[in-house]
Amino acid sequence: MNNFEYYNPVNIVFGKGQIKKLKDLIPRGEKILITYGGGSIKRNGVYDQVIEALSDHDFIEFGGIEANPQYETLMSACELAKKEQISFLLAVGGGSVIDGTKFIAVAMHHSDDPWKILSQRQSIQGATPLGSVLTLPATGSEMNTGSVVSRGKEKLGCFGDPRMYPKFSILDPEVTYSLPERQLGNGIVDSYVHVLEQYLTKDVNSPLQDRMAESILKTLIEEGPKVIHVKDDYASRANFMWCATMALNGLIGSGVIHDWATHMIGHEITAFHGVDHGRTLALVMPSLLRVQKEKKQNKLLQYADRVWNLSNGTPDERIEQAIILTEDFFNSLGVPTKLRAYNIKEEDINTIVESVRSHIPVNLGENGDIDGEKIKTILMQAL
Amino acid sequence: MNNFEYYNPVNIVFGKGQIKKLKDLIPRGEKILITYGGGSIKRNGVYDQVIEALSDHDFIEFGGIEANPQYETLMSACELAKKEQISFLLAVGGGSVIDGTKFIAVAMHHSDDPWKILSQRQSIQGATPLGSVLTLPATGSEMNTGSVVSRGKEKLGCFGDPRMYPKFSILDPEVTYSLPERQLGNGIVDSYVHVLEQYLTKDVNSPLQDRMAESILKTLIEEGPKVIHVKDDYASRANFMWCATMALNGLIGSGVIHDWATHMIGHEITAFHGVDHGRTLALVMPSLLRVQKEKKQNKLLQYADRVWNLSNGTPDERIEQAIILTEDFFNSLGVPTKLRAYNIKEEDINTIVESVRSHIPVNLGENGDIDGEKIKTILMQAL
Repeated sequence: MNNFEYYNPVNIVFGKGQIKKLKDLIPRGEKILITYGGGSIKRNGVYDQVIEALSDHDFIEFGGIEANPQYETLMSACELAKKEQISFLLAVGGGSVIDGTKFIAVAMHHSDDPWKILSQRQSIQGATPLGSVLTLPATGSEMNTGSVVSRGKEKLGCFGDPRMYPKFSILDPEVTYSLPERQLGNGIVDSYVHVLEQYLTKDVNSPLQDRMAESILKTLIEEGPKVIHVKDDYASRANFMWCATMALNGLIGSGVIHDWATHMIGHEITAFHGVDHGRTLALVMPSLLRVQKEKKQNKLLQYADRVWNLSNGTPDERIEQAIILTEDFFNSLGVPTKLRAYNIKEEDINTIVESVRSHIPVNLGENGDIDGEKIKTILMQAL
Repeated sequence: MNNFEYYNPVNIVFGKGQIKKLKDLIPRGEKILITYGGGSIKRNGVYDQVIEALSDHDFIEFGGIEANPQYETLMSACELAKKEQISFLLAVGGGSVIDGTKFIAVAMHHSDDPWKILSQRQSIQGATPLGSVLTLPATGSEMNTGSVVSRGKEKLGCFGDPRMYPKFSILDPEVTYSLPERQLGNGIVDSYVHVLEQYLTKDVNSPLQDRMAESILKTLIEEGPKVIHVKDDYASRANFMWCATMALNGLIGSGVIHDWATHMIGHEITAFHGVDHGRTLALVMPSLLRVQKEKKQNKLLQYADRVWNLSNGTPDERIEQAIILTEDFFNSLGVPTKLRAYNIKEEDINTIVESVRSHIPVNLGENGDIDGEKIKTILMQAL
């Protein structure tokens, strides 16, 4: 196991009926900005629950944060927050709203152009405290420090400053009942790939982290179909929601080697073709595993054995079968694994490759061996 | 899954050579009290590493905290800390030193008799910040709020106030190289039983928590023998150390039903017969599982299947076989599973039962059905 530091002070408040605890989670006297997205929270009752819980608090609202939150939108929210002397941000939404709100929180304190936090990796200078009410399990943003923001064709992330942790996140599985199948499928794939990015890498003798990663994968495989096909099933929604959070809260990634190439390539597919984030991962990951199967062999065989119970055949056959089962799982959730599903063609690939390379000038992957050529191969094989 | 709150802000600093980070983990300007036990840290080099890391800090020391830390000892430390206006406590040791130091931290701020925090469950009134350098993986105290303190024949715990979390805990697996086999065996059993107390209970549809619990159990079964028999093996020590912390940091216990009867009964065996804490658990748990096997049947069958790969035989046979394998595992670590190993006899049992009942006047166990008679049966079957 590698040396690591693990610090995650997010207060997770999990279960049905928990939104009312907002009343006590945010100190009285704070001036709150409630942020949200396109307004689905006004149709599914979440907004009403939040407003009722905060009836004795002082708050204003900022709606309209997009999927892949846009820098310009977030800067408008930042200006409003500064003008109104906001002291606490409450994100009510999925990963985009929470990511965006984290960016608002740090932009409020940045003396230089806040875009440089992303484009030049400038250190943050401060952060307004924030909390979240999660409505879409997927990104893990509710229990980590990550934030990914888009500007034109650029989709960039900043990660790692503990001031960006939410003070609390409320996870009520019932708020997911109104989500469309597409978003649920995206969320399950997103969570699953978060785990693979931290698990299917180089072996550093980390049996507990490995088994915990496999625990999330197996639970997603078991619960995913129920999430998609069984209406208003509390148990499967709760189990999925907790898997999504645990997939990217730092724990399974502590002391092990990470990949993240799939995410880096996927971000560009979103930027150029507008494909939902989770769906880009289903396009890239299986193909990447095939291209990298020699370097990832040990872990892929472990994955084939422990997650998919594959014990027959040559190592190569077992690995291929595990990748096929992974694709089948994604497809069964309504999430395609080929670029043609989005009409992305061979001639589009170079632009994606060049954009990855321009944003991350070093090679990707846990071995630092995914160069432009390899990204191209991965995408060509995903056509 | 049941509703839950999970909040754990302990900064875990894990790996070889991490003790030097104390320099930055404790703010300059704090007046530190370093607490430790019988002095083994002076023989194994840990003390020297701590002192070197704190060479620019202002500190004093208090050694001599016993296994099963004694109230009187801790109150002496508390008086010293108050007199010297200590602002930060650094526990260097195992669970007893860390538990004891948490009690010092809260006793310093208690206006009434601090014993009442334990005996009358008085709320704590404050806590001096503390950190830890863990030397014996076992109790999980380095990443939870628990503290168990002894006074004469009373061994009582207080749990749950977030002010009792260490600010940080340094976990360097190399510091365990000098531990005697007996303490390593105790620590492995302690960690294993912590998991069982949160896992072998009523099923509330918590597949992720279950699998994470099984992950720790399987890793302890795999690494335990290497910890005991392979000298200075970093990997197995690291994996064991992380298992011990994860076994009782609140995570696998979130949203599920707990038992803890084994611990409650075990505490009295320590109080009356001086048996090491971990060793008392190995005496009680197997017998308790046999007595409670009908109510725990679903989880015991899952345990037999997933942890011990038992698929043949009747349900009853598989359960019995899983309990026998658990006993074999404990015995293989040099930890006995029968009271006769400590010369505890039938005539000693009533005193233990009565003392459990006097400290916890309600029935024990996740079903609240372990009354005095059942405690007696459990102990009789463990003779």
